[in-house]
Amino acid sequence: MPIIVQKYGGTSVGSTDRLRHVADRVVQAKEAGYDVVVVVSAMGETTDDLLAMANQITPTPEPRELDMLLTAGERIAMSLLAIAINARGCKAASYTGSQAGIITDTQHGKAKIVEIRPKRVLESIQAGNVVIVAGFQGLSSSYEITTLGRGGSDTTAVAMAAALGADACEICTDVDGVYTADPRVEPRARKLPVVSYDEMMELAAAGAKVLQSRSVEYARRHGVRIHVRSSFEDVPGTWVQEVDEEQMEGVMISGVALDVEEAKVTLDRVPDRPGVAATVFRAIASEAINIDMIVQNVSHDGRTDLSFTAPIAERAHLEAVLDRIVKEIGAERFTLDDGVAKISLVGAGMKSHPGVAADMFDALAAEGVNIEMISTSPIRISCVVRKQDGERALRAVHARFGLEDGGSGER
Amino acid sequence: MPIIVQKYGGTSVGSTDRLRHVADRVVQAKEAGYDVVVVVSAMGETTDDLLAMANQITPTPEPRELDMLLTAGERIAMSLLAIAINARGCKAASYTGSQAGIITDTQHGKAKIVEIRPKRVLESIQAGNVVIVAGFQGLSSSYEITTLGRGGSDTTAVAMAAALGADACEICTDVDGVYTADPRVEPRARKLPVVSYDEMMELAAAGAKVLQSRSVEYARRHGVRIHVRSSFEDVPGTWVQEVDEEQMEGVMISGVALDVEEAKVTLDRVPDRPGVAATVFRAIASEAINIDMIVQNVSHDGRTDLSFTAPIAERAHLEAVLDRIVKEIGAERFTLDDGVAKISLVGAGMKSHPGVAADMFDALAAEGVNIEMISTSPIRISCVVRKQDGERALRAVHARFGLEDGGSGER
Repeated sequence: MPIIVQKYGGTSVGSTDRLRHVADRVVQAKEAGYDVVVVVSAMGETTDDLLAMANQITPTPEPRELDMLLTAGERIAMSLLAIAINARGCKAASYTGSQAGIITDTQHGKAKIVEIRPKRVLESIQAGNVVIVAGFQGLSSSYEITTLGRGGSDTTAVAMAAALGADACEICTDVDGVYTADPRVEPRARKLPVVSYDEMMELAAAGAKVLQSRSVEYARRHGVRIHVRSSFEDVPGTWVQEVDEEQMEGVMISGVALDVEEAKVTLDRVPDRPGVAATVFRAIASEAINIDMIVQNVSHDGRTDLSFTAPIAERAHLEAVLDRIVKEIGAERFTLDDGVAKISLVGAGMKSHPGVAADMFDALAAEGVNIEMISTSPIRISCVVRKQDGERALRAVHARFGLEDGGSGER
Repeated sequence: MPIIVQKYGGTSVGSTDRLRHVADRVVQAKEAGYDVVVVVSAMGETTDDLLAMANQITPTPEPRELDMLLTAGERIAMSLLAIAINARGCKAASYTGSQAGIITDTQHGKAKIVEIRPKRVLESIQAGNVVIVAGFQGLSSSYEITTLGRGGSDTTAVAMAAALGADACEICTDVDGVYTADPRVEPRARKLPVVSYDEMMELAAAGAKVLQSRSVEYARRHGVRIHVRSSFEDVPGTWVQEVDEEQMEGVMISGVALDVEEAKVTLDRVPDRPGVAATVFRAIASEAINIDMIVQNVSHDGRTDLSFTAPIAERAHLEAVLDRIVKEIGAERFTLDDGVAKISLVGAGMKSHPGVAADMFDALAAEGVNIEMISTSPIRISCVVRKQDGERALRAVHARFGLEDGGSGER
């Protein structure tokens, strides 16, 4: 039978009632003729609650033990879901990341999947079970329990789908697809029926929360088709998949994203000599802090300013690294500004349409929004603006590119 | 360095504050020169809360999945404790039952430990860690997560102590030792400095909650000395160990226990032929229901009544078995009376003191308490009485044998 992987996020399994509803959906898929593998996150706020308990004890909990603690969350959700499915007369069995053969590197709290050994999952499928797998967790090469970091359950689901040769990986969540902008900020945003891996990765990196960018990268590399859809309503969502150049014809922009959870970091008067940038970003990377929008301008007097954006959540961690780096490279100082927003325009079609950047800057200027940083990739343009201008900027850009319902940007 | 195993129950780790206090005690033991292995239960009411969620979904949760669910409880407690100990600058690492090499049989919910493979725990000790082990759980021979049943953490602790050749197994709990009677019922009860394995097993089987009888049996078989003591106060508790016959001289009774959580079950008019009792009790044992006080009286007309006591908590389960058994053996019917209490007098010395039983029955008669069932072992006499007479009966017997503070039964 064809295999389908379904992933349910924390909101979708946030109560025993919701777990029962998810059980109904799983049983439906099974009855439709699929072998079903379900990946679950922890229920509702469980992960945050566990984290809060650890922080009551110490602000710097031991990473190995924190992973041991947090993995209890998925364990609770997955076993309750298995209980609910079994109660419907449909056989189900749950497996921890370790039992499901999810092998990671040894980086606690932000481990990367290095291999899936799906033997036990396949045996369980062959025994007729719906298989429930804990998201977000794995076993390291040194036999320690690890977690994949926030949003890691998406990656678990895609990796399982790849390892099992599944037909598709359904990401069932509290929104019903990928939109041209966050509908809470721009009510006229439009649901995209299809989006390419590249665009989805840029959208995710730009702050669209619907999918973790690492999971999209994994899906592209292994050719896994992702279906982002609602956990609650049975309506078609958005397919994330390979899109032919032909299909792209005439499509310019797929969406605008806003990210208010990043800070602008600047290293002032960095000596402009080879190897300095490498030193800075290797040090940051070795702490597994994800950064975006690296910008360096031309230098004066042999010195330059180096800016980038980084998650505000990593602030303490980042400042410790930068204190060290500033001394090491002989920069003047660093500043961290958390009053910014990043607005990004994403679209594979912009490659062949010159003038997109100018149109975007123009739209922002017309709204009186000042641009503090600019960074571009072949399919994305990102601007850093003041945080209070963020939502207004998003709506202006969304309108300028005709992305609203019935607008010209439709695919 | 000598190894000490400390077990902390759910009340002792019931909050992050209490976990911090336990961490202090563990670090003290480490600083006193011991290698410390800590076995923890789930925090406070966690196990009951998880069970309640499962029961919200279905009254009959799948046993495999229920074990997966419940084991999340110790996982949370042990990782938080490891975090607290690490925060004190003392290295600690936590291990699940599976990781700690606790191998059980395959009986979900009531698994028995069949083997301890302490390789990973020993390596962790040698690496200088305080080792925290999840109580109550293990890995079955078919690689499934199992639980040992209520109170199983005591058995985990004793089994680890045996496997590691520990100096002692400290059971740290919310009472400061084993008393001649439950001090909440008989305020004049006296703490016993030492009690033999046999007596402790009889006291546990008779309803004393301080230790699980299975853990005492395990300790006796492997010669593990148990020290029952307070988690909160640093005072000597009760040692459970081998006691020489000589030391027993003059000691008659070690305590009186009351159990109000058992029901009296009677099979009426059972055909009196060989093999009937075996059929009944094999069927009950195969469901892993612990029974006590089996009593069969002389028969009339080739039929007899067969009575025993069993936990009220197993009622539904037991009734299902008995429905089947009654038909199979051709008995008339069964009755289950949950309005009873079991009062037991325990003492290794009673072997050599005739008249103890008579004194006990006399004490009950003087209080006007009617005896419904009697069962004796070489070191225990148990009587079933009406539940409302239980506490009064306990106090009467406690006084009759001079067990109160300053009384003649002192060791």
